[in-house]
Amino acid sequence: MIEELLRSRRSVRRFKPDPVPAEVVERLLDLAVTAPSASNKQPWRFVVVERRATIDEMAAAVRAARARIEAAIPEGSREAVAAYGEYFTRFERAPVVVVPIHRPLPLLSTLADGRLDDADASAVAQMERDSALVGTSLALMNLLLAAHAEGLGASAMTGPLIARAEIARILGVPPGWDIVAVVPLGYPDEVPAATERKSAAKVTRTIR
Amino acid sequence: MIEELLRSRRSVRRFKPDPVPAEVVERLLDLAVTAPSASNKQPWRFVVVERRATIDEMAAAVRAARARIEAAIPEGSREAVAAYGEYFTRFERAPVVVVPIHRPLPLLSTLADGRLDDADASAVAQMERDSALVGTSLALMNLLLAAHAEGLGASAMTGPLIARAEIARILGVPPGWDIVAVVPLGYPDEVPAATERKSAAKVTRTIR
Repeated sequence: MIEELLRSRRSVRRFKPDPVPAEVVERLLDLAVTAPSASNKQPWRFVVVERRATIDEMAAAVRAARARIEAAIPEGSREAVAAYGEYFTRFERAPVVVVPIHRPLPLLSTLADGRLDDADASAVAQMERDSALVGTSLALMNLLLAAHAEGLGASAMTGPLIARAEIARILGVPPGWDIVAVVPLGYPDEVPAATERKSAAKVTRTIR
Repeated sequence: MIEELLRSRRSVRRFKPDPVPAEVVERLLDLAVTAPSASNKQPWRFVVVERRATIDEMAAAVRAARARIEAAIPEGSREAVAAYGEYFTRFERAPVVVVPIHRPLPLLSTLADGRLDDADASAVAQMERDSALVGTSLALMNLLLAAHAEGLGASAMTGPLIARAEIARILGVPPGWDIVAVVPLGYPDEVPAATERKSAAKVTRTIR
């Protein structure tokens, strides 16, 4: 049954205009936060964007960043990149956009306070950031699965993070917090085909 | 039913000595890779460690890093940190340790090739790294859920990444790839209590 749920999930990017009731969004997020996190610190918060003007402002920021990037790319490659970048604003078609954010917990860094050598200091700082990002991503997968089980569609988009700072400003993300993804959510208006995956055998190496 | 599965999952750190059949590990990983990733790039690989000597070597590397960090911390705080750090080697009790790794896909960075201003270049590079880390973390949540559904226990540990470079060397992780977490896997020898979570209402802000 878990197999059926995982295998039937799709990344949905076209939605009916119907709003998603607030209690449904809350139920999905209550399932999302069953995810584990380092020392159960729950390094996540979720900004739920229902206001159309805010979603449009986010999309405009992504378009502006994309235009700057395209302008920096030699003409021969620009067309392919423009098509790729088109995906980055697909979230604007959703009635709700969920933005999971994470905050590193610099416990060891703070205690060590400059007394570690560079290699250890860097490993500790990266572990502390990645811990929060990984934990919040685990919650995000739960959110995608819970949405799917509920008959909703969603997708986890990281492309919009080319406009990370602008989106953080638009959403009023507090200092110290960082955006994980942009997640359009709504009732599906498409049935996406399955996408291929490399089998486990192809992406695994076993040390026996 | 998804609700029951998500809510009953626990982070398991004590395992029976029974080995996990290779075909079970493969089945779990085949479910893990149903996760979405940016442009379906599947930026993940999995190192499955069954060899006891390798698991011990990983644990020794984490203990050595922990000792260096403890030595850098003032005596008054050292005891608390030592207790916290004890968790970082819990993976050594498992018959199998899965190490998901990820690789950033610097498509836009490569094409822009130094022609972006610093802010955009940094946003693009961070988006490309985070995309791969988030995608692989999504696969990791699927792995934890699939293991749970199968009657296996697992946990996602990021603490061992204080010894990130040493673990990468021990496992022969190729250049360009980075470790996401260390995941002990086996038949549970404990029934962990549920851990508390802040409710969705407490960790959500809605922009209406």
